[in-house]
Amino acid sequence: MAIVLGSNQYGKAETHLVRVVRDSPRHEITDLNVSSALRGDWSAAHLDGDQSQILPTDTQKNTAYVWAKTHPVDPIEEYGLSLARHFVDDVAPVVSARIEIEKFGWVRATVDGAEHDHTFTRTGPEIRTAAITVGPDGDHVIQGLKDFVILKSTGSAFKDFMVDEYTTLAPTDDRVMATSLVARWRVSSDQAGGLAATDWNAMYDGVKSVMIKQFATLQSLALQQTLWHMGRAVLEAYPQIAEIRFSAPNKHHFVVDFSSFGVDNDNEVFHADDRPYGLIQADVVRDDALSAGDAWRSYSGLV
Amino acid sequence: MAIVLGSNQYGKAETHLVRVVRDSPRHEITDLNVSSALRGDWSAAHLDGDQSQILPTDTQKNTAYVWAKTHPVDPIEEYGLSLARHFVDDVAPVVSARIEIEKFGWVRATVDGAEHDHTFTRTGPEIRTAAITVGPDGDHVIQGLKDFVILKSTGSAFKDFMVDEYTTLAPTDDRVMATSLVARWRVSSDQAGGLAATDWNAMYDGVKSVMIKQFATLQSLALQQTLWHMGRAVLEAYPQIAEIRFSAPNKHHFVVDFSSFGVDNDNEVFHADDRPYGLIQADVVRDDALSAGDAWRSYSGLV
Amino acid sequence: MAIVLGSNQYGKAETHLVRVVRDSPRHEITDLNVSSALRGDWSAAHLDGDQSQILPTDTQKNTAYVWAKTHPVDPIEEYGLSLARHFVDDVAPVVSARIEIEKFGWVRATVDGAEHDHTFTRTGPEIRTAAITVGPDGDHVIQGLKDFVILKSTGSAFKDFMVDEYTTLAPTDDRVMATSLVARWRVSSDQAGGLAATDWNAMYDGVKSVMIKQFATLQSLALQQTLWHMGRAVLEAYPQIAEIRFSAPNKHHFVVDFSSFGVDNDNEVFHADDRPYGLIQADVVRDDALSAGDAWRSYSGLV
Amino acid sequence: MAIVLGSNQYGKAETHLVRVVRDSPRHEITDLNVSSALRGDWSAAHLDGDQSQILPTDTQKNTAYVWAKTHPVDPIEEYGLSLARHFVDDVAPVVSARIEIEKFGWVRATVDGAEHDHTFTRTGPEIRTAAITVGPDGDHVIQGLKDFVILKSTGSAFKDFMVDEYTTLAPTDDRVMATSLVARWRVSSDQAGGLAATDWNAMYDGVKSVMIKQFATLQSLALQQTLWHMGRAVLEAYPQIAEIRFSAPNKHHFVVDFSSFGVDNDNEVFHADDRPYGLIQADVVRDDALSAGDAWRSYSGLV
Repeated sequence: MAIVLGSNQYGKAETHLVRVVRDSPRHEITDLNVSSALRGDWSAAHLDGDQSQILPTDTQKNTAYVWAKTHPVDPIEEYGLSLARHFVDDVAPVVSARIEIEKFGWVRATVDGAEHDHTFTRTGPEIRTAAITVGPDGDHVIQGLKDFVILKSTGSAFKDFMVDEYTTLAPTDDRVMATSLVARWRVSSDQAGGLAATDWNAMYDGVKSVMIKQFATLQSLALQQTLWHMGRAVLEAYPQIAEIRFSAPNKHHFVVDFSSFGVDNDNEVFHADDRPYGLIQADVVRDDALSAGDAWRSYSGLV
Repeated sequence: MAIVLGSNQYGKAETHLVRVVRDSPRHEITDLNVSSALRGDWSAAHLDGDQSQILPTDTQKNTAYVWAKTHPVDPIEEYGLSLARHFVDDVAPVVSARIEIEKFGWVRATVDGAEHDHTFTRTGPEIRTAAITVGPDGDHVIQGLKDFVILKSTGSAFKDFMVDEYTTLAPTDDRVMATSLVARWRVSSDQAGGLAATDWNAMYDGVKSVMIKQFATLQSLALQQTLWHMGRAVLEAYPQIAEIRFSAPNKHHFVVDFSSFGVDNDNEVFHADDRPYGLIQADVVRDDALSAGDAWRSYSGLV
Repeated sequence: MAIVLGSNQYGKAETHLVRVVRDSPRHEITDLNVSSALRGDWSAAHLDGDQSQILPTDTQKNTAYVWAKTHPVDPIEEYGLSLARHFVDDVAPVVSARIEIEKFGWVRATVDGAEHDHTFTRTGPEIRTAAITVGPDGDHVIQGLKDFVILKSTGSAFKDFMVDEYTTLAPTDDRVMATSLVARWRVSSDQAGGLAATDWNAMYDGVKSVMIKQFATLQSLALQQTLWHMGRAVLEAYPQIAEIRFSAPNKHHFVVDFSSFGVDNDNEVFHADDRPYGLIQADVVRDDALSAGDAWRSYSGLV
Repeated sequence: MAIVLGSNQYGKAETHLVRVVRDSPRHEITDLNVSSALRGDWSAAHLDGDQSQILPTDTQKNTAYVWAKTHPVDPIEEYGLSLARHFVDDVAPVVSARIEIEKFGWVRATVDGAEHDHTFTRTGPEIRTAAITVGPDGDHVIQGLKDFVILKSTGSAFKDFMVDEYTTLAPTDDRVMATSLVARWRVSSDQAGGLAATDWNAMYDGVKSVMIKQFATLQSLALQQTLWHMGRAVLEAYPQIAEIRFSAPNKHHFVVDFSSFGVDNDNEVFHADDRPYGLIQADVVRDDALSAGDAWRSYSGLV
């Protein structure tokens, strides 16, 4: 028996950079949180403390900043691919690179009915995300969003579920359904119509529209069913997407009991609870999708 | 010398309630975080543990829920005034009541180009706030916002400041200026054109527009100057507002030093830093404003 | 009617500094989050954008760092007083200065049963706080703590409270009582046995012990009563403390209803709820205490 | 080509329960945040909205509460195994169950020098964690901790690293090294001396001691090297542990530049920065360890 180094990676997390394009009086801003991880044979650093093959995380940070000047940051997927390829192509010991990006939303401020040239306000809470992997098994882009909070005030039931001795939940034909959605969809270089041909900004808006439409219009029997229909519709609309994954907390809205007060409450006043919450997760996938390789090996996901 | 009970209050914090109006297929939702504090002579509860004059915080929570059914929740200021008046008028020992409200933004989802009847998505990060005080010194409404993040990518300088032996900051003619603004403006019942006549939703939108315009268009010499002009413009536009207070963290955007890399960085790539940050606070007030009484005595502000 | 500048201040928030004393192999560390605010006549900066009287917040940050080298950081109250006096004494336009400090807890790591010379681990969640004001109305130190979470699993009742038509809470003779306490106590320069004579570290430990003892041993009829007894005991023990203020969220622990399952639950299994929560605030004060002046005017408390 | 349901699971997240053992006047408390996920064939729920095989997440919550009464909660690993086995054994469609637990630390309050019977204060920030998987590939317990903040003020270097055109970092022989450690170590049912024989509380304390000793005493050439030595020492000390994984943010402490002020700063005053930070992750594993199966498939890890 021996003790060995297993999976490992290192990088710089959360380099918060803002890029201003000021070639004309009408500025553009892009606000990104960038994390990089490098993968390769880092045994010497671990076992012997030998740093000769280690590009410092400080250098990775510098590179992310410089790349924001020398390469377009919009769409973020292209910026991430370019940065990842640099690490793989130009830094000898790097075998594979992971770039994860959060893009914070901003809109132009309106002054006297017109869009202002250089003043912006933050939007949210939704954050657009990208996770790019470049390596020997191909290139992968996982586009996505998080903190996307969506609610329907009717059109959702939950009933006819399994009952055991610990079940006290009452079935319902009409409830509020709300979630703070995380969704991520994968495009890989081996997929027909894959990375190079994709208009990332159009895809982002399009996938979001498809998901919203399914969430809104499906008479839901469960959050699982809603996620499935959202996923299937996305894959039907975008042949280059190999799979889409969802993590959907069920943000419970409980009807407040007014029976003691002689006041009706017909799904009108709710307590929006914090914890606990249901958590539903599902992957909707093409059955002929090639292997995802390291696409889902996340920046901070080892433990 | 004796030890005595000083200032005190108690209440229920952060009752998170969602009100759905479903009188027609086109639902409306209002998402509120409501806190109440009751003020009066609570000596017996403190000194003797005598609860006979104490309306439980649990009851305050119930009341906030019921009020959301029996009274309009839009505008939030009217809901808060009504709830505060109930505590003062109907619960004998209560001398003064404070209601603080956070209103979270939602917009209708768009499906096939049309607004959906019962599906909504969260907006933000901006949160509309209200702080209502009803008591013997009159009624006060402090309308406001927080987490309103605004940035200008040019049109801001900082120079000609005082220099001492610990000063290393370089003056600049052109910097990014950004803040996560807290602004609160007060309307009191003793002010001409005061509480009753105010269209709260119109005022909220209007004050916000005035602030944005000043932030955007003033060639700023300091954040202090920008706040002053925002405040003055608001008071000029709204005679019923007695004062407006600002708390503005200076969210520093540092130009990244590219001099080692042979790459220009002419205010194009910034590091958006977290801490420390400058914090600028100012009150802009009418010189004939009557006393604010307890208007600024906040829900959680004793310590 | 004119519009004028009211109350205002500015400073640098949250300078997170760590001081290592390494005069011997047995190092000492102090981990502080320091905020400073300067008060004076800043009208020119607001009205005219004239910065000539404005010491930049960046300089305030530098000064906080330098002071951590040139002056002791332990006790934090002395560090804060020294830094505040520097701003008032050495920076001409400054009339009054406020320093707020959070001190994060660390203990020496234990290796083979012995305290290690230079390895430390964080403790918490309790954070020791200090708020120092130096100005024309005297000097004030408010010592305190926050995030101090304390719970008693019996010895607390809540009953015989006021009941109205919205009351559904059941009275109880035995409940869990828990809070995440904020407590702050004031020592002022005009108080006999005041600032100069105080051993701040001994006072901090002593006040905490007194509060814990009262919380633990009083058969509580309400959180208000517990706070009062804590405050009175502190003032009795420390004649130089003029007042103590508490903000105590009632962290509700609800007995889970097991009646459907044929299982007893005699105050054994609780749901620890997040929101809403009761919030109890009280000030316990000497009736001959001199005015607190600006002692309670906090760093971020204008709005 | 067809679109199919891939990996999926559902459960109740963050049931925050407090268990009080009150069989004697000397109470014991255990404070847990429990999440459960059930795995099986949930196709009908997704594709058809058929809930007949779905045990509601509300029921999972109820079960977690009841189990805290009917089964010991200390050690948390035994509680988790028992709860997971219940779902697998007693709920027909469940093939595999995942239980994740956070245990918050509490100590008895001291009153007049003695431990109090029923008053406790929170400790931290360290949180003990457990992740239990029961299923067809065996049972797995991953014991761990998170938010364990440890710092050494000397005994750490970083030099002789790779340099490219974007490298500006200066090498150092002596720096502060600090991290907020996440560590998780796996014991599986197929390992000799595995689940049944383990004294979980002793293992937790022991692994922590081993990690602290290595962190403190190794003259570190890099965080990677420190993690490797921590992991190897743990595996050498505990033959039943198959592997240990680390995620270690490098919490940068930058020496503040005092050169402008004529003041020395020989590693005495540091700026503790928030972001960005290095992130180092590594798995240290026995080379004869059997497959981990689903042990590392986390509760919220699908995306």
